[in-house]
Amino acid sequence: MQWLSPAHRAALATEYRRHLLDDVIPFWLRHGMDSQQGGYFTALDRDGAVVDTDKSIWFQGRGAWMFATLANTVEPRREWLDAARSGIDFLQRFGRDSSGKYHFTVTRDGRPLRMRRYAFSESFAAIAFAAYARASGDESFADHAHEAFAAYLRYAFDPAQSLPQFPAKINPQTRPMLGIGPLMIGIATAQELRANLGDRIIAGRSCTQWIDHWIDSIATRFLNREHEALLEVVAPDGSVIDHFDGRMLNPGHALECAWFVLQEARQRDRADYRQLGLTILDWMWRRGWDCEYGGIFYFRDLRGLPVQEYWQDMKFWWPHCEAIIATLLAFEMTGESRYAEWHRAVHEWSFRHFADAEFGEWYGYLHRDGRISTPLKGSMWKGPFHLPRMLWYCWRLLEPRG
Amino acid sequence: MQWLSPAHRAALATEYRRHLLDDVIPFWLRHGMDSQQGGYFTALDRDGAVVDTDKSIWFQGRGAWMFATLANTVEPRREWLDAARSGIDFLQRFGRDSSGKYHFTVTRDGRPLRMRRYAFSESFAAIAFAAYARASGDESFADHAHEAFAAYLRYAFDPAQSLPQFPAKINPQTRPMLGIGPLMIGIATAQELRANLGDRIIAGRSCTQWIDHWIDSIATRFLNREHEALLEVVAPDGSVIDHFDGRMLNPGHALECAWFVLQEARQRDRADYRQLGLTILDWMWRRGWDCEYGGIFYFRDLRGLPVQEYWQDMKFWWPHCEAIIATLLAFEMTGESRYAEWHRAVHEWSFRHFADAEFGEWYGYLHRDGRISTPLKGSMWKGPFHLPRMLWYCWRLLEPRG
Repeated sequence: MQWLSPAHRAALATEYRRHLLDDVIPFWLRHGMDSQQGGYFTALDRDGAVVDTDKSIWFQGRGAWMFATLANTVEPRREWLDAARSGIDFLQRFGRDSSGKYHFTVTRDGRPLRMRRYAFSESFAAIAFAAYARASGDESFADHAHEAFAAYLRYAFDPAQSLPQFPAKINPQTRPMLGIGPLMIGIATAQELRANLGDRIIAGRSCTQWIDHWIDSIATRFLNREHEALLEVVAPDGSVIDHFDGRMLNPGHALECAWFVLQEARQRDRADYRQLGLTILDWMWRRGWDCEYGGIFYFRDLRGLPVQEYWQDMKFWWPHCEAIIATLLAFEMTGESRYAEWHRAVHEWSFRHFADAEFGEWYGYLHRDGRISTPLKGSMWKGPFHLPRMLWYCWRLLEPRG
Repeated sequence: MQWLSPAHRAALATEYRRHLLDDVIPFWLRHGMDSQQGGYFTALDRDGAVVDTDKSIWFQGRGAWMFATLANTVEPRREWLDAARSGIDFLQRFGRDSSGKYHFTVTRDGRPLRMRRYAFSESFAAIAFAAYARASGDESFADHAHEAFAAYLRYAFDPAQSLPQFPAKINPQTRPMLGIGPLMIGIATAQELRANLGDRIIAGRSCTQWIDHWIDSIATRFLNREHEALLEVVAPDGSVIDHFDGRMLNPGHALECAWFVLQEARQRDRADYRQLGLTILDWMWRRGWDCEYGGIFYFRDLRGLPVQEYWQDMKFWWPHCEAIIATLLAFEMTGESRYAEWHRAVHEWSFRHFADAEFGEWYGYLHRDGRISTPLKGSMWKGPFHLPRMLWYCWRLLEPRG
């Protein structure tokens, strides 16, 4: 059966749906819910046993978004609504300190452990509240979503608003630099808010205007035409910072960026965004795919020099999830056979190496050759997000009425 | 030839000396000196090419200590004295900001890039100044050494003195915890100051009193008799913090601790320290040695659960250097055959996998099975320290008049 032929599409849609609804989501509902204190555990051993009860605030938001989104787009199943509500409640009760900034980790019962400079907890809270506003029909959560997004904008982009205890990692007087992460997360967050709450104005711009603003910055600063690469950090004028950090490419991250942009192109019929997304995908697939062992390298150097991060050649689950989405979406939008071929390659490699047929869900961290580094199914960095989002997104892409 | 028999000892001493003086030190003198701006580059490719000109302040101190120590203990060779002076000058001109705290990294010409909460730059500056005071005969450097050690004591152990922009990583109200790192580095720093400048009083205690204070804390808090392990972080009463961080063992770090304690035992003929050092070595060799592939694992879990760090099974050069010293010193002090056997095992594995016969020096980062992860010879984390210190220490241990 030819990959992504009509008959294969139906089979693949079924595979994604089944893996999502019969394996991954039940794994988290069975093992990740804290029935006593509320919210989600994510530090789960191979079989789902909780190995650390500390809670990631990122994953309270991401998990609540995922469960609410299933309720919104598949069916309003009670256990999904309850699961979403559990994360939402935990976020509201324990997510923030008195300054309004969200934590990074807290104890099982919500006492603060760690806060970070980054504002990604804010962005994940925003998408959770937005999806839950729609799932619950309770309009007050729309306000919470907009508040969290406004906090994200403040902490991620306005240096004057940064908390004094979290100075920039690299002295901005000596070496001013911009990272692509906040722009990408900004785009995905604004897309979610717009989808669930409409295109409202937040901090002076509509969601669509924010998205255009960030895509423009990616196209003009981070896409490097000389080197044919999407950079992770750049000087404010878009030039290469020729040091370890400035040369470090993250192909999986770039492929995630590619599909955020392609999705915007598809929804708004923007040929320029379509071209940008495909360019990022073409260049960064070439940078990231491991022709020897298969799979996507974690880091690469812009000029082919050694990367400082010693685990740079490992294969993580999430870049593979993002690559599966990006290649499938590109094929849907273009019909070009190379995207079907890339999709096949990364789909097959991922399901063969990451999936755990015995206990369910995916391993997160493999060595370059596909051997398992740690059998954890979750941690403070891995929870019910990239994998179920990929399965949900691809299923619906292949079967729009799914 | 039996390992560590008299004839073998002479051959081994020659091997360590030659590798130090004919390979490793020339590698750094040839490739690591910044003849224009002073100080040391450490980000060197396999062949010594500079791949990042940013400078590590840790390694300005560690490198200057190493070069000055060779001048003090081998011979007062001009190029070693000049190399030491270059790092010392750079440290004095560019090492600190106006608050007196040392940076972590600066640009090639000394502009500040990154400062961290930790005070290890201070401790490495202290040993550099102490060794250079002796090498140069300039007593003013003794004062600099004591100042830097006092700054280390202040930033590493007095929370009230911490800079407001560097709060504790984990909220100390929620989860008070102590790390072993500052104690270990404190011991090694005080040992160096005492060796080069005499046993002076700093911040109310002599070097020897500081060492006793920290060894006592290690014995009573960090050595866990129930689990037979040396912990990296503990609750203030020494109990296990049963979360990812609290369970994480670092066997190479523990073996380094073992030889710091054994060295103190040997110098002062302290049977209690001898027993402590050997206990740490016995327990942590068992935890760290990889019976399947050989070499020392980077992280292990106290209870055998998965470690959160996904690169936990990699083999780094420095734990192997520390293990080579610890096992040799234990054999010297006890004559017990298991230490000779362990020394043989880690020596042979290390020289077979880390050493680069073609370009010199050692690779730093290997996969579990010994394959090279990155060919870098140095970075912001690897420079002229662990490897040359090991070669110098073992050579002199085997050939006391070397």
